[in-house]
Amino acid sequence: MSIRPVPLKNVRIADNFWSPRQRLMTDVTIPYMEQILRNEIPSAEPSHAIRNFRIAAGEDSGEFYGMVFQDSDVAKWLEAAAYSLALKPDAALSRRVDETVALIGRCQQPDGYLNTYFTVKEPQNKWKNLLECHELYCAGHMLEAGVALYEDTGKDNLLNICIRLANHICDRFEKEEGIPGHQEIEIGLLRLYHTTGNIRYRDMALRFLNLRGQEPDWFKKHTPSHPGVHYGGYDILPEDTVYNQSDVPVREQKTARGHAVRQLYMLTAMADAASETEDQELQAACERLFENITQKQMYVTGAVGASAYHESFTADYDLPSDRCYGETCASVAMIFFAHQMLKNHPDGRYADLMELELYNAALAGMQLDGKRFFYVNPLETDIRVSGKASGYEHVLPERPQWYTCACCPPNLARLISSLGKYLWSEDDKHVYSHLFIGSKVNTRFGEILMESKYPWVGEVRYIVSFEKEFTLSIHIPSHVQKFILTINRKATEYQLRDGYVYITRAWKKEDTVELGFDLPVRRIYTDPRVRSCRGKVALARGPILYCFEEADQYAPVFSLILPVNADISTFGPVPKLPDDLIGLCMEGKTLEYQEQLYSSTYAEPSSCRMIAIPYFAWANRKKGDMTVWIQQG
Amino acid sequence: MSIRPVPLKNVRIADNFWSPRQRLMTDVTIPYMEQILRNEIPSAEPSHAIRNFRIAAGEDSGEFYGMVFQDSDVAKWLEAAAYSLALKPDAALSRRVDETVALIGRCQQPDGYLNTYFTVKEPQNKWKNLLECHELYCAGHMLEAGVALYEDTGKDNLLNICIRLANHICDRFEKEEGIPGHQEIEIGLLRLYHTTGNIRYRDMALRFLNLRGQEPDWFKKHTPSHPGVHYGGYDILPEDTVYNQSDVPVREQKTARGHAVRQLYMLTAMADAASETEDQELQAACERLFENITQKQMYVTGAVGASAYHESFTADYDLPSDRCYGETCASVAMIFFAHQMLKNHPDGRYADLMELELYNAALAGMQLDGKRFFYVNPLETDIRVSGKASGYEHVLPERPQWYTCACCPPNLARLISSLGKYLWSEDDKHVYSHLFIGSKVNTRFGEILMESKYPWVGEVRYIVSFEKEFTLSIHIPSHVQKFILTINRKATEYQLRDGYVYITRAWKKEDTVELGFDLPVRRIYTDPRVRSCRGKVALARGPILYCFEEADQYAPVFSLILPVNADISTFGPVPKLPDDLIGLCMEGKTLEYQEQLYSSTYAEPSSCRMIAIPYFAWANRKKGDMTVWIQQG
Repeated sequence: MSIRPVPLKNVRIADNFWSPRQRLMTDVTIPYMEQILRNEIPSAEPSHAIRNFRIAAGEDSGEFYGMVFQDSDVAKWLEAAAYSLALKPDAALSRRVDETVALIGRCQQPDGYLNTYFTVKEPQNKWKNLLECHELYCAGHMLEAGVALYEDTGKDNLLNICIRLANHICDRFEKEEGIPGHQEIEIGLLRLYHTTGNIRYRDMALRFLNLRGQEPDWFKKHTPSHPGVHYGGYDILPEDTVYNQSDVPVREQKTARGHAVRQLYMLTAMADAASETEDQELQAACERLFENITQKQMYVTGAVGASAYHESFTADYDLPSDRCYGETCASVAMIFFAHQMLKNHPDGRYADLMELELYNAALAGMQLDGKRFFYVNPLETDIRVSGKASGYEHVLPERPQWYTCACCPPNLARLISSLGKYLWSEDDKHVYSHLFIGSKVNTRFGEILMESKYPWVGEVRYIVSFEKEFTLSIHIPSHVQKFILTINRKATEYQLRDGYVYITRAWKKEDTVELGFDLPVRRIYTDPRVRSCRGKVALARGPILYCFEEADQYAPVFSLILPVNADISTFGPVPKLPDDLIGLCMEGKTLEYQEQLYSSTYAEPSSCRMIAIPYFAWANRKKGDMTVWIQQG
Repeated sequence: MSIRPVPLKNVRIADNFWSPRQRLMTDVTIPYMEQILRNEIPSAEPSHAIRNFRIAAGEDSGEFYGMVFQDSDVAKWLEAAAYSLALKPDAALSRRVDETVALIGRCQQPDGYLNTYFTVKEPQNKWKNLLECHELYCAGHMLEAGVALYEDTGKDNLLNICIRLANHICDRFEKEEGIPGHQEIEIGLLRLYHTTGNIRYRDMALRFLNLRGQEPDWFKKHTPSHPGVHYGGYDILPEDTVYNQSDVPVREQKTARGHAVRQLYMLTAMADAASETEDQELQAACERLFENITQKQMYVTGAVGASAYHESFTADYDLPSDRCYGETCASVAMIFFAHQMLKNHPDGRYADLMELELYNAALAGMQLDGKRFFYVNPLETDIRVSGKASGYEHVLPERPQWYTCACCPPNLARLISSLGKYLWSEDDKHVYSHLFIGSKVNTRFGEILMESKYPWVGEVRYIVSFEKEFTLSIHIPSHVQKFILTINRKATEYQLRDGYVYITRAWKKEDTVELGFDLPVRRIYTDPRVRSCRGKVALARGPILYCFEEADQYAPVFSLILPVNADISTFGPVPKLPDDLIGLCMEGKTLEYQEQLYSSTYAEPSSCRMIAIPYFAWANRKKGDMTVWIQQG
């Protein structure tokens, strides 16, 4: 039997690091997104997404505008709004959510079909071009939103719409062949199954997964030709079966390839399905791909998808720092995937990955003020070329306000506002704590309070508020080499297995587990096959990866050298960054700029103070050069 | 008064390194090119270039095939064939050249117009789309071929065709505004002027240069719209005025930008024009751009044009090794440019650049057997991604046989077969020797024999065969730190200025100047602004730059580390490479591949023998990884 995440409604986060970020979601980002969707921010790219629904409902005139998958922005916002309402009741927001759901309901066709693009523009072409048209993708997001609203706010209005939509999809695709061009419906259907218990939705998700890659030419045979029209806003070729992972049956896939978000949404659904059906082959494929991604295709920040072309994985060890794509959505999806993997096996690698993404690649996608977002998350930016020169057009040195393709901001919003659901799992014997994020959890055994000074200080505490026997399983992050664990200030016995300590006892009220550990600065090196990192080192402390940003340095970023034996000390606050943030300071070296481009004499570097800041906080001050990997010498 | 190159007909190369390569041109490459142009090599991409002329002459049926500038391949082959005939008389080749010229003559229109694409396909659109249609570009190459055939073989058949063509161009563009979309006609007109003395051609070249950039919108105003048709085979936008350097008047251009070959052909003509007209402003622009290119935008091999997108310069110090474009044609054009710069000022920097390109970036464009060619010349190839993964599609690890766009192979052929003209210059007081390439030269003062053991051994000798007073000026390559110069085995006085020694005396018959110098292995470092080379070193010996190729190593190329103080020794022969070639051997280190992608412990490298070979000889054995820049540690 698999272990189950403790649902969001049973977890309340109270954490020095994450609570302010959740408040940023409820108070700034989610309202801001709503304004964007309603075209109320003149300086941002217009979204038109709400208006598309009004037009589809026949309540407004005009043309559909935006990406063919524009509906998914509304769905993702509704999902985030559901979490926001769970975090912080807000009658006005609740009313606007209901109004929006009602509007969606008025767009739904009598047969359950729901998609504004096809309702407004091409009603005759529904479900005809699964490769490009994202109807199943949008439906999947709608299902996620409907489930979230129901589970976390008790509203069943969108859920009912979604049940009709899901039934319509099942009616159609249970009989007819069809696979989605962008995986996501599988996640939505599985969530709907978990909530409703209706096995039809689970089996429909399985069917989509099982059909995929059985016939590699499927999209070629079933995609209508339409010269000049590209629904995705770019050229998706039916021949490019690697792009959407439809070349090989899912159980036989060996390495991550193609569009990273498609790959990871598929893996998320596969992992969920594997635990639902106890399908060993599916589980093995998930493990194999997890291993491939994290050990061969992932940046040290957690970013994945090295190439801007098709936002895709490329080849093992191909991880160029300065042209990195590393879409924010892909890092969010890595958390989804890892979280599903925990259901089958509480392995520290999955919790470690969630931690890595949360504190680094995913979090860096957002400005500290919650209003600007990165789509692309490079590990090195050079302002002379970033965003401008050929090959670097996608690598922006500043977060833009909004995007025409606005997938990343709402993905971050729904992740952070629902962070509670990633913290705890349980089964009939265990309670698992995956992340050191302060929170109060209602388990099946009773309430546990968890207090944390993480990520800046290695002190966490679990206080049990009831009397019962169970096993408390706490994930110890892989960077923690040594720790002291006490119960009620006394040393205690525990097992350590796969990155979790297991403490079994008859717990008493107020029993307190305390964990203490150092957070030394770590130097991180890569396998030499990563060509771009040869001779370089990155710095981390606890879960936080660091970078060197121009704003803090006494010499140009790309002239800095970190001596092998340099002492690295912590300091704070860092000028113009939040007070709690801890910087690193060290005595390094700098190479002077030379008069000649090439020289036969090695210029001796001179001493130079160097400062590193958490990577997630980069690009929050003036625009400048940045690097995660620094030359070691 | 400027100094003049000693014309090719007065120079005969006899050199251990270059004579075999010239024989390769006459015996292999130029005949092979001819077969390609005649579609006689089934395994190579069809060229169809000769057949286009037959169709245009009404002597064959069928359609025009190939690039809109396909004619230029025939022109460049004719130019190379002219040099080949000068090197090695060949009655059959001479006859085929005459037949081809006669065929070209039959394609020429009564008004002098000559271009098979427009004659066959769009006679109504002649001269209407200067941005894309390459008519002036093809004409420029035809003029170069006509001049070469006349100067170096005495044939005036193509020259007469070219005079009619040039007159036609002058008739049209002396009155009407017009600038070429791809610079080259300016070089051709100036060469025709040098040969005929007709100042009209010089002035036409000057007019093309002077008009350029005066009206930045010129191409936008004068390019007909034609959706779906792209004459260049790719999208050239009239708005992209940087691409063809038409955004700013030529005298005001400050850095090299846009398409590298366009930029360099323009600079070649500008430098020639500056020396013709003693135009200080034009000369200053040439010097400024020479400085910008060589000190900020040139790879250590001499390759230029960092970006595959538009084959273009990008930004100062943006020189990624693994995505380098570095078109062979651009390196050939760098030699043209430097050679013209020598006319105004015998400065060692120009001769150094010719040497760098000749022995490295340009020469690497060709397989040792003379039959395969690189268009792109990277400094790092990783066979897991090169030619395949996104961003590396253009970086091939092997030279292909031929290209649809076949500009590079004939450019190399005409360079190497006419190498004699780059060696010597003269004026009324001096004879200048620019390169240590063994040769016999007829100067205005008499014959000088030059013998050289370069590039492998630092010994050269000049033997004067006449009695006269003049100054012998010998370029000392910048890598030569110390040298011993004797005349008739006795130390002698000389001046050293701007990289040339000046020896003035009343020379006697058999007077012999001997120069001796060491060729130590040099470590080369870059300015730290070149991000991709941080912490890395390249090796050179004399004019030869080295690289590390998989075929020679005892450990994977990208795991190699060269210790700061490693002794580097020479050896030879290198297995499976020509006997004369000198390799480098050193005791280095290698980092083992790691189990984990990222690790907090620095793996200690182990000892490992490392081998470097001349860069020009890379990719002549089995396909494998290669790097010029090696980690120093």
